[in-house]
Amino acid sequence: MRIAMIGLGKMGANMASRLCRGGIEVVGYNRSPEIVERLANEEGLLPAADLSSLLDMLDPPRIVWMMLPSGEVTEDMLLRLGDMLSAGDIIIDGGNANYHDSQRRAVQMKDEGIGYIDAGTSGGIWGLENGYCMMVGGAEEHVSQIEPVLKVLAPSADTGWAHVGPVGAGHFTKMIHNGIEYGMMQAMAEGFSLLEGKKEFDLDLAEIAEIWRHGSVVRSWLLDLTAEFLSEDQNLESISGYVADSGEGRWTVAESIDQGVPAPVLALALHMRFASQQENGYGNRMLAMMRNAFGGHTVKTQDEQS
Amino acid sequence: MRIAMIGLGKMGANMASRLCRGGIEVVGYNRSPEIVERLANEEGLLPAADLSSLLDMLDPPRIVWMMLPSGEVTEDMLLRLGDMLSAGDIIIDGGNANYHDSQRRAVQMKDEGIGYIDAGTSGGIWGLENGYCMMVGGAEEHVSQIEPVLKVLAPSADTGWAHVGPVGAGHFTKMIHNGIEYGMMQAMAEGFSLLEGKKEFDLDLAEIAEIWRHGSVVRSWLLDLTAEFLSEDQNLESISGYVADSGEGRWTVAESIDQGVPAPVLALALHMRFASQQENGYGNRMLAMMRNAFGGHTVKTQDEQS
Repeated sequence: MRIAMIGLGKMGANMASRLCRGGIEVVGYNRSPEIVERLANEEGLLPAADLSSLLDMLDPPRIVWMMLPSGEVTEDMLLRLGDMLSAGDIIIDGGNANYHDSQRRAVQMKDEGIGYIDAGTSGGIWGLENGYCMMVGGAEEHVSQIEPVLKVLAPSADTGWAHVGPVGAGHFTKMIHNGIEYGMMQAMAEGFSLLEGKKEFDLDLAEIAEIWRHGSVVRSWLLDLTAEFLSEDQNLESISGYVADSGEGRWTVAESIDQGVPAPVLALALHMRFASQQENGYGNRMLAMMRNAFGGHTVKTQDEQS
Repeated sequence: MRIAMIGLGKMGANMASRLCRGGIEVVGYNRSPEIVERLANEEGLLPAADLSSLLDMLDPPRIVWMMLPSGEVTEDMLLRLGDMLSAGDIIIDGGNANYHDSQRRAVQMKDEGIGYIDAGTSGGIWGLENGYCMMVGGAEEHVSQIEPVLKVLAPSADTGWAHVGPVGAGHFTKMIHNGIEYGMMQAMAEGFSLLEGKKEFDLDLAEIAEIWRHGSVVRSWLLDLTAEFLSEDQNLESISGYVADSGEGRWTVAESIDQGVPAPVLALALHMRFASQQENGYGNRMLAMMRNAFGGHTVKTQDEQS
């Protein structure tokens, strides 16, 4: 079996490697060619210099797996692929697209006879070794054609992947997965922050994370990773507390509003990231001024703060 | 090595069994004697009919592990044990005591020369098979004496337990563990609630939980348990949404207030449990009446609601 992989960033490169090692032929294309060359040398990836040569190296029905940043980059690529692919071909979006976009794109591709699969993919940089968890949306006739690929990418042929529903259901499920991830991360970070704040006990946070990995109720892969970085440095003094968010947390909270179904902890975990992204945010300056206004409480200037 | 175990409820009985199977002699006492008899027959526990015969069956220094409900039951038992034990003996509280209580109790026992260890214990009903995670607080001279016991109770001799600090540090660490657990559980419950709410995709929640167990970022023991109960019934229609809380979540939030360290998601997870415990709560009735007062919005009576 041979497929094309477009986008060989952190996720795509590792997925291409896992496929090559698992006996799937992968034709690879990436905007900057260095990684293509490296994977060709190290993993036996078949390098393509541009999109048209990439597609020329596939026999119909051509199967093209995209691992690109969601949004404009994905949208642009789909416009180009839509022009170049033919009826019967299949596109898989393995990125973190908004599921509404995936539903719309599938309809557009269907007009050309092109199959569309949204494969929400989790596993981060550890997927190469451990395999990926894939939540796949699409028509049965399309998903069945890529099963051999899914079975190699997954932790094992029968675990970690499923055809969860029609197009859109894959990215929807991945979106909720990431929403849960935000909440679990925030809960863990708050707990460790309280351990760290308890100076009188002089707790060894790395040791606590390590013992929690065995037999405790909070044992989890996030805790495994946490124990690992804490074992190297538990003060984190050189780390900035700016926590990025990348869309899926926001969409999860928007979904809860659309459904009218409460998800307050997921929403709060997202808002705590927003708060972390503000330096001396306007809301807090407002609060300081209000305290001053009604109670005459002292207001710190920015100079005094720092 | 021989120790006494007082309190053979769900946790204590399984811990006594694991100790017996691991070659530790356990003298057991429980208020209601049926479980003592069962463990004597099935696990070789040495049964004691009352406290004084329990203590008579130990050689000094006597080591007594308590697995009792925190609060009054533990306090009463300690008053009795304090009178009956002698200098050099050691009491371990493996329950979920408030760490302030453990610190106070250790001081009281120290006056009698009795050692006090607070061993926060996690693992639930699965600990018998998997071993327990134990966060141990106390003086080195006392903790070193119970190491053989900890090594049998833990998942393995070298994993899942540590002497984390002075008396109080064990229950403190267990308290934070449970606070994190509240947040992780709430995050997961909210995510699955949004999956369930997406009727158009007709998602198989048991299948999604199962695939997330492999390769995803949210894989965790809580997810393992979730996948298991969802595989039997994913509608949960017969289940009441009343979610109990048992103290440690409240103490974690109180701790964040004492420290002045933010833990908003842990606090919210706790408050969501409070909300689940209210049927037609006063706050919501107030809100309905306020909407009515300023906007003339219709108010449902309790009869219409149900």
